[in-house]
Parts: sequence; C-alpha cells; structure tokens
Amino acid sequence: MFAEIITIGDELLTGNTVDSNSAFIAQKLTERGYWVKRITTVGDDVEDIKSVIRESLSRKPDVLIIAGGLGPTHDDVTMLAVAEALNLELELREDALRRIEEFYLELYRRGLIDDPKINEARKKMACLPKGAEILNNSVGAAPGAFLSYENIKIFVLPGMPKEMKAMLENEVLHRLGKRIFLQKKLLVEITDESKLAPVLNEVLNKFSIKIHSSPKGFGKYIGIILFGDSEEEIEKAKKFMKAKGIRFEEV
Amino acid sequence: MFAEIITIGDELLTGNTVDSNSAFIAQKLTERGYWVKRITTVGDDVEDIKSVIRESLSRKPDVLIIAGGLGPTHDDVTMLAVAEALNLELELREDALRRIEEFYLELYRRGLIDDPKINEARKKMACLPKGAEILNNSVGAAPGAFLSYENIKIFVLPGMPKEMKAMLENEVLHRLGKRIFLQKKLLVEITDESKLAPVLNEVLNKFSIKIHSSPKGFGKYIGIILFGDSEEEIEKAKKFMKAKGIRFEEV
Repeated sequence: MFAEIITIGDELLTGNTVDSNSAFIAQKLTERGYWVKRITTVGDDVEDIKSVIRESLSRKPDVLIIAGGLGPTHDDVTMLAVAEALNLELELREDALRRIEEFYLELYRRGLIDDPKINEARKKMACLPKGAEILNNSVGAAPGAFLSYENIKIFVLPGMPKEMKAMLENEVLHRLGKRIFLQKKLLVEITDESKLAPVLNEVLNKFSIKIHSSPKGFGKYIGIILFGDSEEEIEKAKKFMKAKGIRFEEV
Repeated sequence: MFAEIITIGDELLTGNTVDSNSAFIAQKLTERGYWVKRITTVGDDVEDIKSVIRESLSRKPDVLIIAGGLGPTHDDVTMLAVAEALNLELELREDALRRIEEFYLELYRRGLIDDPKINEARKKMACLPKGAEILNNSVGAAPGAFLSYENIKIFVLPGMPKEMKAMLENEVLHRLGKRIFLQKKLLVEITDESKLAPVLNEVLNKFSIKIHSSPKGFGKYIGIILFGDSEEEIEKAKKFMKAKGIRFEEV
C-alpha cells in the first residue's frame, strides 16, 4: 500500500511557513502501513494544483491526502482544482452551508466577528466536488472532502494545522485501517556514521527490515529507526547488530 | 524566472523529520526574484529520485535545488541518481577526496572519531557527476555539486540543515543574482478573513502585486504579505487598501 501527500499554499513556496502538516500526515500514514512515496507542494493556483493531482493519480497510490487552500480568501482554490482534476462539477452543499452558517453565528455570539452573514467568500467553502462525502471540520469553518476515484481514496483537508489534525484524526484515519507498522528507534553509540554503514547493509540483506538513519553530526550517538512488519523481525535485527559489536539503546 | 526544490530523505516521508530545509531554500530563492513553483520530497531511492529530477527538468525551471542524501550511509544515493538522471557518469574526484580525508583527520585529531582512514563509505562522498563543479561543505564531509543542464542551474546540497545552509549561503546564492524582490508583511486588523477577501481581489486586479495571506484563526489580526517588483507599486496597493477602510500595520 502506498500513499502520496499534496500540500498547497503560496506561503509554503515563499518559505514564510514551514510545512509541518506533511510530516504529521506522513507519520500517521506510516503507522497504518502506508508507504508514503512522495510529498508535493504547490501554490494556490488552480492549474498547478490540477497538474499535481493528475500526476499523483496516474501513479495510482492507494491513498492521496491533499491539505490546504479550503478557506474563504481569493487564493483558496483547492476544491475547485480537485473537482476539475477529477472532471467533477463543484456543487453547493446545503448541509455544509448550514454548518458554516452555524459556525459564523457562534463566532458572532462570542464577539469574535462583526457580521455573521453568509457572503460569497464564506459560501464558497460549502462548494464540494459532486459526490464527495463531507468531512466535518470540528475546529474551523471549511469542511473537507472524501472521494473515491479509481480505487484511490482521496481526502481533501484544510491547511491550518489545528483544523487539519482534528479532521485527520476524527474523519480520516478510521477509513485507513488500524495501526500495523512497527517502528523502533535506536540511539546507536558510534563515533562515525560511516563505520555503521557496512553493518546496516548486512541487516538490510539478512532481514525483512527497512532502516532510516538520521545522522546528527559526528557526535557519539546516531539515531536510527528500524521498520518491520513484526516485533520478532526487529528483535532478530537488533540481536544481529549487537553481535556485530554495535552498541545501542532504545528510545 | 522560476525554480523548483527537491528534498530527499526517508525520514521526511515517515514524518520523523519536518522538512525545514525547503522553506529556508524557498525564502532565499524568493528574495532573489525566483518564483518557487513546486517542492517535491522523495525517499532515498535511486529510481524515485531520478524520476522527480527528470520530471522537474522537463518543466524547465531556471534553477533546481536538490537537498539531501549526500552522506556516507547506505541510503545516501542522491549523487548517483543525479548522474543517472542527466546521463552522466559518476566520477571519483581527487580534489574532493583530499578534502574529505582532511575532514576526517581533523575529527580524529579532535578525538571525535576512532579512525580517520578513508573507507568505501567515506570515499563514496567524493564521487560526483562528471563535469560538476564542487561546492565546498564548510561544516560537514560531503561536498555538493553544481551543474548546468540545458540552461537549468542544478545545485545538489547536503540534507543536514547546518551544512545545507552554509553551502547555500557561501556557494549557491552568489550564482543566483542579487536580492531584488520586495516583500512587505502587514498585520491586518479585521474580525474575519472573509471580509478582507473582496478588497484583496481588487488589489490583485488593479496593481501588479501578488498577495499571500496567512490566516491565523479568527482573531483580530491576519498576516498578509504583499509581493511587488518595486516599493512604489507596494505603496500604491497599501494606499488603496487604506482608502477601502482596511486597517493594518507593517511588521
């Protein structure tokens, strides 16, 4: 099973915002056994978003998660781009609109906004690609969308981290199965990453394990992560490393 | 002028590391007048890296910056993938090797490693695509590379942020021209982002300005960034906004 992530926002391409969303999404997908193969970031441009969606779909991932560009401003065009990429119409959803109305009324009641009325900008957020399931936004105004397209599960989420995380956890993850993948983080004692390399190569050859190393300079410790389908396989790999004189502790 | 960024590393795709490198690179490119149109992240896999490089080159950016995967471990395969993507041979560079030898000798002298000898893993870092200019790594072992391919400037940088930043600033930026783009960040007083949208739309139509808004919830202020080629154009846009009753301060 493999997955792709698309994050959308001009602020990511000008470096004004670090894209922490894709790491959060990637971690949740990894834990559920999805191999995230690619993350793509584009700006708030209908044509650019359409292109990356179509390119991603052509690689036939099992899951595609798209985050960003669902708000009320002029540059929030993701839903339109999703609809066009899938050759679907954009449809005003009364159920979504009522939810948005309630949201702004509540903000008005709490004194956070001057005017609770639905204007065009707010109404736009209730427009979803035809046939999409609404994903509830428990934190903000804009709903997300879930679509199935040629056996690819497509989720469209907001870009504000607080909203994205809530929607991912409440509305997306249960559609992606249980946590199945095991990761074991080790802190390996070694005076140089390059001396560890030959042993890690042997581990890769001998066991059904993936290894990620995250070098942190040339200090005494290096973090590595063992990925395996089972606790057993990971334990075997650890024993082998120990036998080869590699000293480590679990973190 | 437009640019693309490719970041490489399994740790980015499992969510173990947030990709802060691409934001840093994007910011520097933006300031120099490059429009970063796409950021792509793939894992430490030769075929995947080759694919994204070739796809990027087919879009003919003026600049392509690739970061990550230059170290001594088994999964550092970026230079090989760059060479294959460009149909170039990988070549052991004696000048780079001597620099790497010195680097490990220095670490040895300072008591940070046990053994300063060049092994295969360390030697690998001295292999660059044929014809590449070496980019000096003032902080770590692995050199970067600069290549010109069909008028596209390609820079290959290490993934460790400290090394990447030093190389970008010392070896890359002077090859990309002066800082020319102006950004003006404004904190706009408004009780809802969606009320600002119609005015921003007018600004976009009337002036040669790009606008990025970075909504921060539904509080009293919203950050927006005006991008323009000249101070004048930005000032005109600000005046227009003020006349429309939008209150803001510069940050």
